[in-house]
Amino acid sequence: MRFTSEQRLDDGVLEREFTLGEIPGVLWTPGSAPAPLILSGHNGGLHKRLPRLVARARHYAAEYGFAVAAIDAPGHGDRPRSAVDEQARADLRRALEAGEPVDEIVDAFILPLAEKAVPEWRTTLDALLSLPEIGGPVGYEGMTAIGIRLAVVEPRISAAVFFAGGFVPGTLVEEARQVTIPLQFLLQWDDEGMERQPVLDLFDAFGTKEKTLHANLGGHAGVPWFEVDDSARFFTRHLK
Amino acid sequence: MRFTSEQRLDDGVLEREFTLGEIPGVLWTPGSAPAPLILSGHNGGLHKRLPRLVARARHYAAEYGFAVAAIDAPGHGDRPRSAVDEQARADLRRALEAGEPVDEIVDAFILPLAEKAVPEWRTTLDALLSLPEIGGPVGYEGMTAIGIRLAVVEPRISAAVFFAGGFVPGTLVEEARQVTIPLQFLLQWDDEGMERQPVLDLFDAFGTKEKTLHANLGGHAGVPWFEVDDSARFFTRHLK
Repeated sequence: MRFTSEQRLDDGVLEREFTLGEIPGVLWTPGSAPAPLILSGHNGGLHKRLPRLVARARHYAAEYGFAVAAIDAPGHGDRPRSAVDEQARADLRRALEAGEPVDEIVDAFILPLAEKAVPEWRTTLDALLSLPEIGGPVGYEGMTAIGIRLAVVEPRISAAVFFAGGFVPGTLVEEARQVTIPLQFLLQWDDEGMERQPVLDLFDAFGTKEKTLHANLGGHAGVPWFEVDDSARFFTRHLK
Repeated sequence: MRFTSEQRLDDGVLEREFTLGEIPGVLWTPGSAPAPLILSGHNGGLHKRLPRLVARARHYAAEYGFAVAAIDAPGHGDRPRSAVDEQARADLRRALEAGEPVDEIVDAFILPLAEKAVPEWRTTLDALLSLPEIGGPVGYEGMTAIGIRLAVVEPRISAAVFFAGGFVPGTLVEEARQVTIPLQFLLQWDDEGMERQPVLDLFDAFGTKEKTLHANLGGHAGVPWFEVDDSARFFTRHLK
């Protein structure tokens, strides 16, 4: 793990960019150490392009004493796009616009993404947990498809906040039955292009006994700010 | 309003029973005054018989500085039962056990209950707000059917936590469209005898733009304790 930039922010949080082999990432750490860790597994780019995710990470670090790490998934953010991925994205957009079923495209696109991203998260986790400023239990939050697979195969993940606003292949919905860690599941009630029933079915599918669904009005990017505090308190209950 | 008992509890909360005409109630107040008020509109009896509701009220008062009042609805708790109500209860039980539709029984039982309970809540609110130890905005939590009508007709109610584990007549589902205050809606995912879809439809029906659904695993009485803190923080956002 090689740190490529370092900046002390005005809320006292240390923000560092890093690379780990091909993987580009960002780490936010609070003043206090060792801090429990939250992995922020988002589908989009790096922090510079997703201000609301940076705001979440900094709030977790500054107000709740968590370390937070985000990496770019293969073919996302600062990483090179493959022709296959670009084709899948175009197919997905076209099918959504035409109102056609997207199950096959999602299977062909998201399942390989999760299969590539999860080993990278585990490698990143090894590196992060070797840092003296990070210690204790680990949580995951963000993209559901990657998170389900990660929660199933990685025993160091102790709790998760999943964001329901993304496509989840049927294979991973089935795998959700093996997820037994406590989780909070965020649903945007008016998410564009997402149907509500499959999300409720996925909530049902999770194998854990301690799961809470939080549904709020509004579209994909409209998660209310108070949910950041709700998520932080959920992680505080389970990671501290 | 006549106080009939007074007890300082070990968490510093003052618990007083009162009567107001025919209405028996309990008031919990914190050490600090004047405190914003939460009305606890439950369908069951008084505090002595519902320890989990007493625990909620005391936690609100001791940890968050709210005053909390509970009254017995007509025909509930310490109040005399009418033959009509007893018949309706028996009919409802029989229909539920036989798996028959209950809509007509619910309309005939719950709608008159809400119609009688709401004016009593408003009278109680007048009396409570005249006490020097109570001041500021008012919230409501508990039984949904009474709460919908109260939120529609009583402008002093600023925020509400509704518990989805009770029957709501169609008339009140329609009235829910006129509810415009912020609300949190608690659903027990495995509530015995309640279907999930009508509850989700009711969540959809509420006219307010700021509404959050919290769904947890478990049956009617199994709301996790952390939801008490979530509700308290919701009221803190909106009443303080």
